[in-house]
Amino acid sequence: MTKLNLTLLTDFYELTMSNGYFDSGIADELAYFDLFFRRVPDGGGFAVMAGLEQAIDYMSNLSFDSADIDFLRRKGGFSEAFLRYLENFKFECDVWAIPEGTPIFPGEPIVTVRGPLLQAQYIETMLLLLINHQSLIATKANRIVRAAEGRGVMEFGTRRAHGASAAVLGARAAYIGGCIGTACTVCERDMEISALGTMAHSWVQVFESEYEAFLAYAKLYPNNCTLLVDTFSVIGSGIPNAIRVFKELKPARMGIRIDSGDVSYLTKKARAMLDEAGLTECKIVVSNSLDEWLIRDILRQGARIDSFGVGERLITAASDPVFGGVYKLSGVEHEGAVAPRMKLSENVEKITNPGFKNLYRLYDKDSGRMIADVITLAHEEAPAGDDYTIFDPSFTWKRKRLSNFIAKEIRKQIFEGGKLVYECPPVEEIRSYCLSQIETLWDETTRFENPQPYYVDLSQELWELRSSLIAKYSEG
Amino acid sequence: MTKLNLTLLTDFYELTMSNGYFDSGIADELAYFDLFFRRVPDGGGFAVMAGLEQAIDYMSNLSFDSADIDFLRRKGGFSEAFLRYLENFKFECDVWAIPEGTPIFPGEPIVTVRGPLLQAQYIETMLLLLINHQSLIATKANRIVRAAEGRGVMEFGTRRAHGASAAVLGARAAYIGGCIGTACTVCERDMEISALGTMAHSWVQVFESEYEAFLAYAKLYPNNCTLLVDTFSVIGSGIPNAIRVFKELKPARMGIRIDSGDVSYLTKKARAMLDEAGLTECKIVVSNSLDEWLIRDILRQGARIDSFGVGERLITAASDPVFGGVYKLSGVEHEGAVAPRMKLSENVEKITNPGFKNLYRLYDKDSGRMIADVITLAHEEAPAGDDYTIFDPSFTWKRKRLSNFIAKEIRKQIFEGGKLVYECPPVEEIRSYCLSQIETLWDETTRFENPQPYYVDLSQELWELRSSLIAKYSEG
Repeated sequence: MTKLNLTLLTDFYELTMSNGYFDSGIADELAYFDLFFRRVPDGGGFAVMAGLEQAIDYMSNLSFDSADIDFLRRKGGFSEAFLRYLENFKFECDVWAIPEGTPIFPGEPIVTVRGPLLQAQYIETMLLLLINHQSLIATKANRIVRAAEGRGVMEFGTRRAHGASAAVLGARAAYIGGCIGTACTVCERDMEISALGTMAHSWVQVFESEYEAFLAYAKLYPNNCTLLVDTFSVIGSGIPNAIRVFKELKPARMGIRIDSGDVSYLTKKARAMLDEAGLTECKIVVSNSLDEWLIRDILRQGARIDSFGVGERLITAASDPVFGGVYKLSGVEHEGAVAPRMKLSENVEKITNPGFKNLYRLYDKDSGRMIADVITLAHEEAPAGDDYTIFDPSFTWKRKRLSNFIAKEIRKQIFEGGKLVYECPPVEEIRSYCLSQIETLWDETTRFENPQPYYVDLSQELWELRSSLIAKYSEG
Repeated sequence: MTKLNLTLLTDFYELTMSNGYFDSGIADELAYFDLFFRRVPDGGGFAVMAGLEQAIDYMSNLSFDSADIDFLRRKGGFSEAFLRYLENFKFECDVWAIPEGTPIFPGEPIVTVRGPLLQAQYIETMLLLLINHQSLIATKANRIVRAAEGRGVMEFGTRRAHGASAAVLGARAAYIGGCIGTACTVCERDMEISALGTMAHSWVQVFESEYEAFLAYAKLYPNNCTLLVDTFSVIGSGIPNAIRVFKELKPARMGIRIDSGDVSYLTKKARAMLDEAGLTECKIVVSNSLDEWLIRDILRQGARIDSFGVGERLITAASDPVFGGVYKLSGVEHEGAVAPRMKLSENVEKITNPGFKNLYRLYDKDSGRMIADVITLAHEEAPAGDDYTIFDPSFTWKRKRLSNFIAKEIRKQIFEGGKLVYECPPVEEIRSYCLSQIETLWDETTRFENPQPYYVDLSQELWELRSSLIAKYSEG
């Protein structure tokens, strides 16, 4: 067992700011923060929300023990009154969030936190870390799963994960995104995600011959006998030895795994050899630095594959390993009214949306497909009617009139005054929900190359607030 | 606090194989495994070894508790005798490894494990995970540090790390690679790596004006006052407000941080404004999705920067986030003699080196520079003499005669029969060692683009063993 101190796993500036808010007497002013991201990794059309359960655990258990306080005192710069506050820290925020497994889009508030300024600020680092990481991997996994076109994809990347929690929670996120299991054993113990695996090359090498290695394995595991056939030569020895053992011992489930070489050629050849030997039910598993592009390409070449083991490029989201979620102040409450706040920037895409907001997803009444997301101010009514105009917040001439839709509030309240009011679904349920929600996206949104951007638009009122603040700040 | 069960954080096949070795009666045969990698990330000329301390912790503490055993029993497929063995598991291996902070090269055994087959096999997944992850980040950090040409680089990536351990151990690895500190607070508490940070945009937004925000901060933190100047407009308001506050309050150490926009232009302009105001000692910190290429480019453009905060592209090694360490069987002991093992492959670069081996680093006697690494069989004498020929194992016509060198065994014994016989140096010492060792590399090896491959050659005896096994296996 290894213990991680998550309380101090935070950017140091959260502490200097918290101490500063406290000593300036504004620690308890009500503040609003939004968590959102600006860009879908890999140029994709949507991302998959994940990591909320761990974020909830973090917020539920946030407390400072005496060793934490002693460390901060030694480090210096903090007032004693602030350290006493931390000693008695009790999480009191309201939190709304999009449930895990939901498709999410750039610019929308996937989490909103309202609470005492100090607290709402302090949770920033871990909230981002947990949601950025799992959303990244769930999004990548779903791309790979879609490329596999119905074939099972197993997460095989533990050894290349960025640390222990990346392995475990990465496997969780991969499962949410549609993988059928993982190589990582502890995920089955702690999260009921099937852990799978049979043998490495070392098993084959230990025995005096490949045949003896296969035979020993098949005797031990007659119910699930997948043999790794590329230790010496796939075609020259691996497949022939596997066939010999399968015919001798007739395991209940049999498969071969190929981990190197020209997968397209080798699987076609392997399939032919197996079929000729009457082993049509023998499955072919492939695992060799795969990703969505390679899988798509080898399937296009007619490779004969039943399932994939995907490792390093999934568990690290290798082609684009950063999920850029940010956490920005959107308002401060003064005498019961929200004073909206926003951040200008030299980079236009870094400008934020002000105020306490809500998020609606509009579904077409007939097809059930997602049409657009609309961000409103929290006090506004839900989008409705048969002539509802939405427009792009940056390119306001891009307008669209909507009719025949249902607007759903897609965020749930998670905490109310620090009390948990949400029950996390089992991960299996999150996975099914994710796959069913992605079915409601148009192909234009889900394609890998140059997807059509999904509409995430602002209500008229929010857009006017935003414009007026930009004008005000720009005047200086 | 979050607990991670590292014992079952392992590829499931380690368990099926372990059970198989046990039930086949070969669990206690002495086996040899080498950990090595095949390719330096980012096409670099060398990598930096890191993660050994955590790997040692893992091996020292590996044990199965009753909940682990119960889970395996429920999952099924394991013999009761094997589960009883796990209950009494006691690590008994010999381990040799290259110390952390050492430059390492493809193909060389950076860790060798000798011990009971079952045990030496079982530790594969976590050993790889821990060393792959930290070596990846230390290697990347060192590239970024070298690009900064003496300016400090701070690790700022916690929120984009792949999970909690990636944040903490990534910061550790970044420090080993030459960073001067991290934003991640707990790293100072637990590893004495300086944690740094001052304010986010939210601090500036909470106050009624940027000036008031800066003033409040400077009053609270007169000893280290770095102000974030890009919330509204760097030149239009950020710098003028910072100058006003610095002149009014005269903090002991002052700095500004720019997190967006055209860094090259803005820092030159900022430097001129600060200097004109007499604030020549005010430092300029930059942090905006930087990596070694961007840092090099903006410095080439004459940007005026004192230090860098590097986040997502460092903590994820974004441009190449996979460190491909593997762990391969190299021999099995029969009646006191090592029976060498190797893996052939359709991919030539996946062929392994057989036998129980040793690793020497040859330094030029006069310059102290590294010349080559030589892998020998363990019983061979150290390379010596004034006419020592080395040759590339794949391209054997590439030969080189060496003289005037000193050969150092660069691996240390870590465990002897399961007993820890090595003391991990403090991380500060590892960092200094790393930077001093990299000084002994030639510029041809350290350059970013197309570095000259460093020689990692085989002794004549090892090469002959390898060739004879290839011939034997190829015959079938």
